[in-house]
Amino acid sequence: MKNVAVIGGGTGVFTVLVGLKDYPYHLLAIVSIADDGGSSRILREDFGILPPGDIRRALIALSSASPVLTKLFSYRFKDGNNLKGHSFGNLFLTALERITKDFSSAIEEAGKILNIKGEVIPVSLENARLFAQLENGYLVVGETNIDIPKHDPNLKIEKVFLNPRVKANPKALKALQKADAIILGPGDLYSSIIPNLLVDGIPQAIKQSKAKKIYICNVMTKYGETNNFTVEDFCREIEKYLGKNVIDYVIINIEKISKKNLKKYSKERAQPVELRDEGFFKERKYKLIKAPLLRKTQFLRHDPHKLAKILADIID
Amino acid sequence: MKNVAVIGGGTGVFTVLVGLKDYPYHLLAIVSIADDGGSSRILREDFGILPPGDIRRALIALSSASPVLTKLFSYRFKDGNNLKGHSFGNLFLTALERITKDFSSAIEEAGKILNIKGEVIPVSLENARLFAQLENGYLVVGETNIDIPKHDPNLKIEKVFLNPRVKANPKALKALQKADAIILGPGDLYSSIIPNLLVDGIPQAIKQSKAKKIYICNVMTKYGETNNFTVEDFCREIEKYLGKNVIDYVIINIEKISKKNLKKYSKERAQPVELRDEGFFKERKYKLIKAPLLRKTQFLRHDPHKLAKILADIID
Repeated sequence: MKNVAVIGGGTGVFTVLVGLKDYPYHLLAIVSIADDGGSSRILREDFGILPPGDIRRALIALSSASPVLTKLFSYRFKDGNNLKGHSFGNLFLTALERITKDFSSAIEEAGKILNIKGEVIPVSLENARLFAQLENGYLVVGETNIDIPKHDPNLKIEKVFLNPRVKANPKALKALQKADAIILGPGDLYSSIIPNLLVDGIPQAIKQSKAKKIYICNVMTKYGETNNFTVEDFCREIEKYLGKNVIDYVIINIEKISKKNLKKYSKERAQPVELRDEGFFKERKYKLIKAPLLRKTQFLRHDPHKLAKILADIID
Repeated sequence: MKNVAVIGGGTGVFTVLVGLKDYPYHLLAIVSIADDGGSSRILREDFGILPPGDIRRALIALSSASPVLTKLFSYRFKDGNNLKGHSFGNLFLTALERITKDFSSAIEEAGKILNIKGEVIPVSLENARLFAQLENGYLVVGETNIDIPKHDPNLKIEKVFLNPRVKANPKALKALQKADAIILGPGDLYSSIIPNLLVDGIPQAIKQSKAKKIYICNVMTKYGETNNFTVEDFCREIEKYLGKNVIDYVIINIEKISKKNLKKYSKERAQPVELRDEGFFKERKYKLIKAPLLRKTQFLRHDPHKLAKILADIID
C-alpha cells in the first residue's frame, strides 16, 4: 500500500483526506499547529496543549466511525455560559491529553475511538505562534489575525514566521521520508499551508523524500492574504519556504465559475486564481495539471472526489 | 436471559451493575434524575437537559469499551477557567443530546459508543427538584443540600418530595414490568434511592411487577440523612414510599468492620447499620439475607462481586 502524506490545515486538508479515503492508500495527515482562534486558543492558553482544531478536522476526515460519533466530534456548543463556542472534539482531545499525559497518545487514542483510516500527525509537538510581517514592517501576531485581518488587508504579507522556532515532530519526518506522494494544499497560503514549512526540519524532509510532490493551488484568492495572486504567485511563495524545484506537480482548477458565485465572492474581494504565465512552469520542472475540480455547492471549493481522482492518477 | 432492573443513583447503582455485568442477565439500570450538584447542575441550568451525572455513572458501569474511553468518560476537568469541574462524560451526553435532539436517543447513542451491556434508563424524562422537609418544618431545596447538609444535620428528615411532580419514563415502566428481579439500593436513602420512588407510576409498577424485589441495605449510616438508622428504619422509610410487603428480600452486611475503619467513619458521625429487631422482618414477608459483603478498600463499601453472587443466588 502506498503512503500518501497530506500537509496543510483548515478545510483544505479535510477535502483531500475525504477524497483519498476511498483509495487504497495509507494516509498520513500532517497538520498545522499554528491555529489560535476560538476554542483552540482557549484550550491552548488554559491547558497548555497544542491547538486541537486542525487535528480534530483531520481525524473527522479519516474517521469511519458511526455518523453520530463524527457529528459529535464536530459539534460546537451553542449554549452554556462556559461552553459556548467550544468544539466538542477539541474538549475530547484535551481530556484525552490529560488522561494519556501526552498529546501524541491522545491523538492516537482518538484515532482508535473514531476508527480512522491512516494517521494524524501534528507537524510539531511544540507550541509556537505564527507572525506575519507586512510590507510596511508591521508585525501581525497570531494565525487568527492573519486569517481575519484587523490591519489594512491591502498591505502585502512580506513573510511569515513562527516564534519560538520549533522542531518537527519525529513522526512527521518519518512520514515524509516513507511517503510515496506528498500533497501540499489547498488552503490559506500563509495561515494554513506555509506554517507547516516553517517548522525546522520539514522543508528538508520534503526535499529529501523520494515522494512525488504535489501542490494543489487554491481556486480563489483571499483578501488580506493573497490579493490578486496568480497561480505563479502561489508557487513562488511556496518556493520561498520550500526551495525551488521541489514540487513536481501543480494542480489547478479550470472549471468555469458561475457568474452568481463570482459576484458573491467579489463582495469578499476574492477572485479566481488565474494562470497568467505558463512559461513560469516551463522554466521549472513543475508539471502543470489542469482539471475541472469544483464542488457543486454554493461555496467555491474543491470537490473531494474529483480532486482525489486526479491525485490518484499521479500517485499510481 | 433474565431481565434485572437496578434502581438507584450515585455509587450504589454502580457497584451493583459492575458486579452483575459478569452474569448472563439483561441489565436495566433505572437511575435518579434528582442530581443537582456541580457539573450536572450547570448543564441542567444552561442546557435545560436532565442531570447527566447518574446516567453517566451507570453507562460507565455497563461499558465494555476500551479502558481509555471509560476513563475519558469519567474524567473531570481540573484546569481551565470555563471547564474546571465539568465531567467530560456529562459534556459528552450534553453534546449528544443537542445532536440527537432528545435525551433518550443521546443515552442510547452513548451506550453504543461505550459498548454497554444492558440499558440505562432515566427514571423520568422530566426535570424536577428534590425537596426534603425536616422535622421542624424547614424545607431543604435540592439533592445536593440534602446530600451535603447546610442545615443542622441532627434534624430528622420527615419526608422528601419532587417538585414539580413528574411522570415515569415509559421505558422505566416497561423495564419494571418485564423484570425478573428488581434491585433497590444500596445508596443514600433520601438523595439517591427514594427520589426514584417519588416519580409518578414507579411505585405502582414495582408493586405490579412479578419480579423478585430485593432491597440492599447500606453498610453505614449517613450523618444528616440516616443518623442512628437500623436496618428496620431503612426498610420502614422505603415502605413509606413503596408500600408495605412489596419487598421480598432484604440484603444486609454482616462482615465485621475493622476498628480503624470504624474510627475513621466515626469522625463523619457514620456508624454501622445494625439489625436490632428481627421480629420486624418476621411480621412482614421480607426474607432477610445476611452475608459478608465488604470491599477490601479503605472505604466501607459493598464489594461488587460478593454482592452480585448473593443477588444471583436469589435471581436464579
